[in-house]
Amino acid sequence: MKPNHTKVIYPGSFDPVTYGHIDIIKRALRFFDQVTIAVAHQSSDKKPLFSVRERIELLRRATAGMGRVTVEDFEGLVVHYARKKGAGAVIRGIRMLSDFEYEFQMALTNRKLADDIETIFLMPHESYAYLSSRLIKEVAALKGDISAFAPSYVVEAVNKKLRAKG
Amino acid sequence: MKPNHTKVIYPGSFDPVTYGHIDIIKRALRFFDQVTIAVAHQSSDKKPLFSVRERIELLRRATAGMGRVTVEDFEGLVVHYARKKGAGAVIRGIRMLSDFEYEFQMALTNRKLADDIETIFLMPHESYAYLSSRLIKEVAALKGDISAFAPSYVVEAVNKKLRAKG
Amino acid sequence: MKPNHTKVIYPGSFDPVTYGHIDIIKRALRFFDQVTIAVAHQSSDKKPLFSVRERIELLRRATAGMGRVTVEDFEGLVVHYARKKGAGAVIRGIRMLSDFEYEFQMALTNRKLADDIETIFLMPHESYAYLSSRLIKEVAALKGDISAFAPSYVVEAVNKKLRAKG
Amino acid sequence: MKPNHTKVIYPGSFDPVTYGHIDIIKRALRFFDQVTIAVAHQSSDKKPLFSVRERIELLRRATAGMGRVTVEDFEGLVVHYARKKGAGAVIRGIRMLSDFEYEFQMALTNRKLADDIETIFLMPHESYAYLSSRLIKEVAALKGDISAFAPSYVVEAVNKKLRAKG
Amino acid sequence: MKPNHTKVIYPGSFDPVTYGHIDIIKRALRFFDQVTIAVAHQSSDKKPLFSVRERIELLRRATAGMGRVTVEDFEGLVVHYARKKGAGAVIRGIRMLSDFEYEFQMALTNRKLADDIETIFLMPHESYAYLSSRLIKEVAALKGDISAFAPSYVVEAVNKKLRAKG
Amino acid sequence: MKPNHTKVIYPGSFDPVTYGHIDIIKRALRFFDQVTIAVAHQSSDKKPLFSVRERIELLRRATAGMGRVTVEDFEGLVVHYARKKGAGAVIRGIRMLSDFEYEFQMALTNRKLADDIETIFLMPHESYAYLSSRLIKEVAALKGDISAFAPSYVVEAVNKKLRAKG
Repeated sequence: MKPNHTKVIYPGSFDPVTYGHIDIIKRALRFFDQVTIAVAHQSSDKKPLFSVRERIELLRRATAGMGRVTVEDFEGLVVHYARKKGAGAVIRGIRMLSDFEYEFQMALTNRKLADDIETIFLMPHESYAYLSSRLIKEVAALKGDISAFAPSYVVEAVNKKLRAKG
Repeated sequence: MKPNHTKVIYPGSFDPVTYGHIDIIKRALRFFDQVTIAVAHQSSDKKPLFSVRERIELLRRATAGMGRVTVEDFEGLVVHYARKKGAGAVIRGIRMLSDFEYEFQMALTNRKLADDIETIFLMPHESYAYLSSRLIKEVAALKGDISAFAPSYVVEAVNKKLRAKG
Repeated sequence: MKPNHTKVIYPGSFDPVTYGHIDIIKRALRFFDQVTIAVAHQSSDKKPLFSVRERIELLRRATAGMGRVTVEDFEGLVVHYARKKGAGAVIRGIRMLSDFEYEFQMALTNRKLADDIETIFLMPHESYAYLSSRLIKEVAALKGDISAFAPSYVVEAVNKKLRAKG
Repeated sequence: MKPNHTKVIYPGSFDPVTYGHIDIIKRALRFFDQVTIAVAHQSSDKKPLFSVRERIELLRRATAGMGRVTVEDFEGLVVHYARKKGAGAVIRGIRMLSDFEYEFQMALTNRKLADDIETIFLMPHESYAYLSSRLIKEVAALKGDISAFAPSYVVEAVNKKLRAKG
Repeated sequence: MKPNHTKVIYPGSFDPVTYGHIDIIKRALRFFDQVTIAVAHQSSDKKPLFSVRERIELLRRATAGMGRVTVEDFEGLVVHYARKKGAGAVIRGIRMLSDFEYEFQMALTNRKLADDIETIFLMPHESYAYLSSRLIKEVAALKGDISAFAPSYVVEAVNKKLRAKG
Repeated sequence: MKPNHTKVIYPGSFDPVTYGHIDIIKRALRFFDQVTIAVAHQSSDKKPLFSVRERIELLRRATAGMGRVTVEDFEGLVVHYARKKGAGAVIRGIRMLSDFEYEFQMALTNRKLADDIETIFLMPHESYAYLSSRLIKEVAALKGDISAFAPSYVVEAVNKKLRAKG
């Protein structure tokens, strides 16, 4: 499908969704007509806390009422998925304290694999400079309060999961 | 003016335009209806080689036939200018070897000054990872061949300027 | 004088003081009995906007009522000044977006020059991650509103100076 | 307990203690009355070589005779532990070649979780710029001599463990 | 054996060899008489896709006809191996987007362990700035085309392995 | 002239030579038959403290007795000079705390300008991680003792210059 430049993919693990992700989604919606949040089946060698279905559920709740957002799962390469959906770009949040070099490596690889799919970097609010799904899970596992990092239903879901595991 | 999210500003010194800038402009045009290249009068403490008028001239030549691109000069803050033009975002090319921290600082400051103007980062082609206007001028001043870095009329203009100065 | 480990120096140009500096001073006061703010006569090759006397004035106003803080000017090396004052450490604010390598270079050099004077790094509030005196001056020079970056009397002083210059 | 600003926590895995850790402890003792070395039960997903008890043992030996140092284990969040002990700050060694962004992320998260507990960064001696517990274990596993990196009883303990493992 | 400064070791996992590795080997051959590619038995905690024997095979094919190149496996520390072979230096490719700090840490450690073995950094072609063995395996696992990243026989070997696995 | 891969250029400002430079020269001599230290006439916009002639003098003294080292001045591009001298590579010291991105930019530019001239990076001793000519001049200007950073005749020359200027 020919890329449609008003349609973008926002891919990730979202294990679980954080206020940082939600911030990026809102920013992307200012510029693009349709934002597809794409939840990856394969994750880079870590065991996810939530199943893909659960992660989609939490994302749907987090984006309810936003309109022009869809949440889906995907397998394989992001650029293949973007092309299948006719999206013209992949959105990435770029945090001050994220692994910037990793983001660049991914973006360059994706460009080599699919030259017509652009990577567009947006910057989340400065309060989310340090926020990641992994951080939320680590803090919660150590009995810390994560209510500053994600919506209440995400907080509950994380705590419930950890009690079940542990 | 209410920001129009299909209209973006691409600000800079462009002293002079390089293949790296041209690459970013083409990428921006895939996603936005109108790209305004905004040439800054004030530059961060260095004496420019070209006058604002000359830099605009070279940019107009470089973007001739692209359509949907306008080249203008501006004074004052980028976000004030963006707001005046009704643009919803500022485009920045983010090179592997650029001063990434500087870009982030600018973007955060601009957000503080104008919360409704987003900064959007695009990545130029990997061949331009090292390219900057300053590099071109330094290489040319040392009698190096800069034809791999900018269009022929820019190369000529740089060499002419340097002969006149030197 | 033998270093007193409850006494520290907070050196800088403070041209002018920002909310970021004030944040660091407050944090230092939690841990040390006496904080001497040391305003450098020599600055690293840039022309200061304010005279040393004016910078001291603004700092005194910013720290009025804090107690246990003194503001002084100094010439020469920070470690020589620290030793003269009997201070055991030099405080540095370390921002996410500051030149971290520069801070490390200075700290290592100072250690080589005076092994008994430690450099202690404190982290300002995340909202000041992007803040610097230079930024404030640049934004004000471009007619931007800097009231989010420094106290009102600093804002006024900066604007007055720029009008006088400009 | 109200934070006592002369009391600090130095948390970590210490698997095992290195000359770099010992250097930081000595520097912290110059400024604070009481340094509690807090050995974490949970480590970030790697299997430790030494048990918590063994790591405490080696640390006690390394700090014997220093005075004002206690070695303890802890579970849960560092800031919760600091608060329980009435400590006013968490000490972190910040190496030129450590994961600086990770340190910043931790410090910001800890501040969000407990605003009254500061993170204070000290810089170890330049000779330890590259030193980490993980490095020591890797070099020893490859039959390298680690006597430049840790006290002799640590070296022996590491080699004994590795022989036992096989 | 006394180090011979015309003989160098190029160590790594090479799981599998990429165009980036081949580029570095060619550059090393311009300056050194003999380049020994040393394939590590131990790899830093990841399960390799290829056996050491297979990795050597692919490297031999990739360097066939180059002359002055030998491919061997090794166990233990790189510097011990270098010394055993009488090599005067270890070659490392240093990519714009590699973990530069990790390279520096390794080089400093190796120097501490064997002061007479130098680490020499070469820079691969800019097109390989993002390339790594791990990237190739990840892209292939997601059904992406890796023919831009490695010779055809490596591509085939990777795809065959992945089909066999699963 | 066809590049000779046993001959290298070590270019720089050397204003003045430091122990860090001398360390790199010694390392280069282990691997290359002939090292030409090339002192740049043009320096990147700063006023040098020493004339080219004086810098050459100090370098000759610092390398006296080393053999296989020559010190020369050059104008224009490093790669043009390297080619003229028949050198196969440009040596750069790469410090932990130097501007690594700047080094990479230069190396990539030089490669674009002269594909047959390689840039080879060597790492100075860790004690020189923070050392630069600029640092020496700044410390001396502030009346600091620089004898740990450069040979005694360099120290004397710097202090004499500064007295003359100041």
